[in-house]
Amino acid sequence: MIAVLKNTATKEQIGSLVGWFESQGVKVHESQGDFCTVLGLIGDTTKIDIEMLQSLDIVEQVTRVSEPFKKANRKFHPEDTVVDCGGVKIGGGNFAVMAGPCSVESREQIIETAKRVQDAGATMLRGGAFKPRTSPYDFQGLKEKGIELLLEAKAATGLPIVTEIMDSDHLQYFKDIDLIQVGARNMQNFELLKALGKCNKPILLKRGLSATIKELLMSAEYIMSEGNENIILCERGIRTYETYTRNTFDLSAIPVLHELSHLPVVADPSHATGKRSLIEPMSMAAVAAGADALEIEVHPNPSKALSDGAQSLTPDMFVDVMKKINAVRSII
Amino acid sequence: MIAVLKNTATKEQIGSLVGWFESQGVKVHESQGDFCTVLGLIGDTTKIDIEMLQSLDIVEQVTRVSEPFKKANRKFHPEDTVVDCGGVKIGGGNFAVMAGPCSVESREQIIETAKRVQDAGATMLRGGAFKPRTSPYDFQGLKEKGIELLLEAKAATGLPIVTEIMDSDHLQYFKDIDLIQVGARNMQNFELLKALGKCNKPILLKRGLSATIKELLMSAEYIMSEGNENIILCERGIRTYETYTRNTFDLSAIPVLHELSHLPVVADPSHATGKRSLIEPMSMAAVAAGADALEIEVHPNPSKALSDGAQSLTPDMFVDVMKKINAVRSII
Amino acid sequence: MIAVLKNTATKEQIGSLVGWFESQGVKVHESQGDFCTVLGLIGDTTKIDIEMLQSLDIVEQVTRVSEPFKKANRKFHPEDTVVDCGGVKIGGGNFAVMAGPCSVESREQIIETAKRVQDAGATMLRGGAFKPRTSPYDFQGLKEKGIELLLEAKAATGLPIVTEIMDSDHLQYFKDIDLIQVGARNMQNFELLKALGKCNKPILLKRGLSATIKELLMSAEYIMSEGNENIILCERGIRTYETYTRNTFDLSAIPVLHELSHLPVVADPSHATGKRSLIEPMSMAAVAAGADALEIEVHPNPSKALSDGAQSLTPDMFVDVMKKINAVRSII
Amino acid sequence: MIAVLKNTATKEQIGSLVGWFESQGVKVHESQGDFCTVLGLIGDTTKIDIEMLQSLDIVEQVTRVSEPFKKANRKFHPEDTVVDCGGVKIGGGNFAVMAGPCSVESREQIIETAKRVQDAGATMLRGGAFKPRTSPYDFQGLKEKGIELLLEAKAATGLPIVTEIMDSDHLQYFKDIDLIQVGARNMQNFELLKALGKCNKPILLKRGLSATIKELLMSAEYIMSEGNENIILCERGIRTYETYTRNTFDLSAIPVLHELSHLPVVADPSHATGKRSLIEPMSMAAVAAGADALEIEVHPNPSKALSDGAQSLTPDMFVDVMKKINAVRSII
Repeated sequence: MIAVLKNTATKEQIGSLVGWFESQGVKVHESQGDFCTVLGLIGDTTKIDIEMLQSLDIVEQVTRVSEPFKKANRKFHPEDTVVDCGGVKIGGGNFAVMAGPCSVESREQIIETAKRVQDAGATMLRGGAFKPRTSPYDFQGLKEKGIELLLEAKAATGLPIVTEIMDSDHLQYFKDIDLIQVGARNMQNFELLKALGKCNKPILLKRGLSATIKELLMSAEYIMSEGNENIILCERGIRTYETYTRNTFDLSAIPVLHELSHLPVVADPSHATGKRSLIEPMSMAAVAAGADALEIEVHPNPSKALSDGAQSLTPDMFVDVMKKINAVRSII
Repeated sequence: MIAVLKNTATKEQIGSLVGWFESQGVKVHESQGDFCTVLGLIGDTTKIDIEMLQSLDIVEQVTRVSEPFKKANRKFHPEDTVVDCGGVKIGGGNFAVMAGPCSVESREQIIETAKRVQDAGATMLRGGAFKPRTSPYDFQGLKEKGIELLLEAKAATGLPIVTEIMDSDHLQYFKDIDLIQVGARNMQNFELLKALGKCNKPILLKRGLSATIKELLMSAEYIMSEGNENIILCERGIRTYETYTRNTFDLSAIPVLHELSHLPVVADPSHATGKRSLIEPMSMAAVAAGADALEIEVHPNPSKALSDGAQSLTPDMFVDVMKKINAVRSII
Repeated sequence: MIAVLKNTATKEQIGSLVGWFESQGVKVHESQGDFCTVLGLIGDTTKIDIEMLQSLDIVEQVTRVSEPFKKANRKFHPEDTVVDCGGVKIGGGNFAVMAGPCSVESREQIIETAKRVQDAGATMLRGGAFKPRTSPYDFQGLKEKGIELLLEAKAATGLPIVTEIMDSDHLQYFKDIDLIQVGARNMQNFELLKALGKCNKPILLKRGLSATIKELLMSAEYIMSEGNENIILCERGIRTYETYTRNTFDLSAIPVLHELSHLPVVADPSHATGKRSLIEPMSMAAVAAGADALEIEVHPNPSKALSDGAQSLTPDMFVDVMKKINAVRSII
Repeated sequence: MIAVLKNTATKEQIGSLVGWFESQGVKVHESQGDFCTVLGLIGDTTKIDIEMLQSLDIVEQVTRVSEPFKKANRKFHPEDTVVDCGGVKIGGGNFAVMAGPCSVESREQIIETAKRVQDAGATMLRGGAFKPRTSPYDFQGLKEKGIELLLEAKAATGLPIVTEIMDSDHLQYFKDIDLIQVGARNMQNFELLKALGKCNKPILLKRGLSATIKELLMSAEYIMSEGNENIILCERGIRTYETYTRNTFDLSAIPVLHELSHLPVVADPSHATGKRSLIEPMSMAAVAAGADALEIEVHPNPSKALSDGAQSLTPDMFVDVMKKINAVRSII
């Protein structure tokens, strides 16, 4: 860590700051410039609070050289992590496709979808039971009943299940779930992250709506620091000024996360774009960018007015998308 | 609500959609243009899911005319809400200043700060006991011990207390807290919002890092829909590309929230700017824009290297800021 | 176009507004709801100023149904446009790679680079002669001398040239340039766009730092409305809060632009990411997303300290990237 | 300037880089850490290209300590600059209000507005003659005829004129204009900035839609480096994800610009918010934040349907806003 001090800093102030750093177990190299003093901090600076330092009057700028995340850091763990989700491996060259409806609606719907996506080549079933909704008046999901239906679909097909948790008090319902998803809005719900760090389930951690790549890794670090290292990171689009797509799909995050971390990365083109017609090209692009898995919405029931045109692909469309995905995978 | 349908929509598709709307208790006016069909939906459309509608293939665009929030909406509740926080009234012409340290560190620190900010004119004491931190390795607060110290400071000065909650399981510690703060990262932690809707304490709801004004109101609606209508909204800066300030302080949100809602609005210049030198001008600006309260960081202890220059004001600086705030208040 | 009027609008105000619309040659369908009046505008609304309408007191919201761009619009020109740049075709299934250094530095540098990228499979040579720089103290390019050197490199290799223009007064130097680039900072330099609309050269129009997809198309429309329809659009990253990459590469813009417009789309992974290690995966992703061309920085001279590590690829690295690009192209 | 090198950098690479810095007239202090080497660059680093440095493979991070702007920098010019615009002084305690219509429409309109805003206390007249519009089909302004009408209004009232330039070829029409405005879209039209640096007129430089505060200062530096130091900076809202207001009014930029620079700062609440009802509170807030001037849209003609509700204030509303502005000014 490098701290640049203002040229208005007095010797006493500098001495006091250096003393404090040393009391934190960090060695300090001081060098004096024409316009400023530079302190190079050497040793374990992960516990130094960079925002606090930046707010000091005598500090011009602070720059981290070593990253504040350790367990998620590829520097200290060079080989790819492979996460096993109910028998399906993700990462380290293992590729998976998680498909299914946004919400679990009924036994028939979820079992039919499971069968259709399995036939098309999906290796895991996704479906929402606990649904985070912007409005309290919108459908909040079938909750524990939805979990039960997902497990019935698993029994019928053998597909492992990924579904979202919204509160640590609900963990009791997730005992047989293969991969527990943390949604974008909860990426910095630190109490939930800590609770998940104490369970021994694989976690799919979605990037927050305006989270930086490093904040996503710090949230993974929260879970890992409690003992659970089975984390899959997820790029699902970030919030920008552009309104044509629901979010802006930051595909660069995929190779960046692979550089910075050993954890697998999944991409979610359905939530990232919000538009059915973009799922195919953006799935292909995500795979070309190195995604270890895709999470795609598929809804089985084209006969009803509403599902007719949903952002979700129909099972038939999904068959085509899988072919394209596999073609891109074949040349990676 | 207005739904514009594509000119590729067939009569059957339109009829099916109209039937579904009617089954939801909404009347439909259909008008046919050269390039599109327009459906005007009349009645209670708060339960219609706009994102789902937008995702239909036959739908070009959907526009809400009436807002999806009801209890927070000024249209249905024209007079200002006044929230009573342990005897301090906020809103409807009542102005308050909440001051104190970012974190509660010790009995001495919090009691001294309480006395100093009270002398300067603050009417409530703020201080963090449960601290949301980006890194699991950063100081997480004194937790329940911090709450106890805040209550000691209240006993010593009579100042009501505002402090942050991070998990509904901690509610037991907040029984004697006067105003419970929900931080930006938890603005869409819907399970926490629902739990707070069932307690009878005033809630200070901070805008999320990249939450729209309407999403902030929808989160207030979550709390209110469970029965608790004592909500104060808080503008604390939003995330943008500008890095000179920690966040971008969206002061326009203050008059906008007053137009859309009857709830009081507090502004937090300390977190919004992250720079001590900006607290004074931005406090004055927030009051000029109509803020019902300010939340300002003040730290008492200028003798230590670290607190010396913290973003927090010293008590002496705070005295000057209070004079400027009062001057602006006098002409509002 | 749909205009939703507030329920406070009087009959006189509505009548006056309807009269004004009719005077603009637009037919109006009026429908009355419980909470609002909706005007459906039918006919050619491209000249109606939507921002002005939105600012009227009686107007709640205005929504465009038909897009305000015509010449760039795929609805009125369904087949792909193919742009011929000095013999190299782009669009409609024709793919090109433009490679070369950020700035032209010397005859030797540009000619060597041209030969190396040509050998690796590039079909056009890029290089900056007029350089837009944030600081007036930074190198501003070799200007007309740089153009001369680019033309020498063209003579030596046969590669057509793409290079940036910054002012319409410089058009005299671009007579022999095959594709004239408009940089992101000039995307809404409307006087420059109009001047380029009157020349008969292909134009590569880069998306502005925070331009929406529709604003990019409106800027293309400026050029096309003056008579020049040989436009190639370019996604080169947008500005967001994320700082790890120089910009956020909005790859979704590629299929979106293809849906909305018939114009070819090029992607620029070098400027979008600012990181050499990301060029390969993001080039592959851009091709998988449907890009009609790529623009990639390559610098020939690894012996100097500075170019040693530049964001630019070395020619050897570029050989590898071309192989990966061609592999992805083969399955599109 | 501080350059942090990766621990993979070899001695030869470091030596080569240090040699290059020294050849640029910069002294280098090298210090070796456990994980990295830090180079402190001392002397005039304004000509060092930070983006180029950051792109070197051996460089982890580069941080500027001294700002790259000199002439606009308060460090080298501590006293406030006062700009004289046709007799109206702005900055250094001198406050001005520029008011008038978005576009000049007719002689009657502009002269009537000039008289009305003058009566209410405005000290300068604003009005658009050359209009930058997103669409080529929207009204582009009366151009040179508009300039003539503005000068007639000046003759009738004595109010100095501020109006926008879009191309350096139009400078001939601006001979009698008192303050030349550069719009947000042209903030980085560097050729225009250089041309304005060679004229001897005061320049009002608007912040770009997504320009950082430092980029705004670098654009001022472009003009100043050519000899023209009469610059007024303008905060007019930045582009964010929030759609309720047209832009997000970044009022913190006002005190930040005052800290970093000696140039006066004007705020434009009309363009920043796009909503008439927000002009009054945001004008007051801008003055409370320290703005040296305000630019406000006022349109005189409430009898026509269209101007009836425009974002512009009516002259009567403007009278009220001026009273509130003056009240806030009185306590600054």
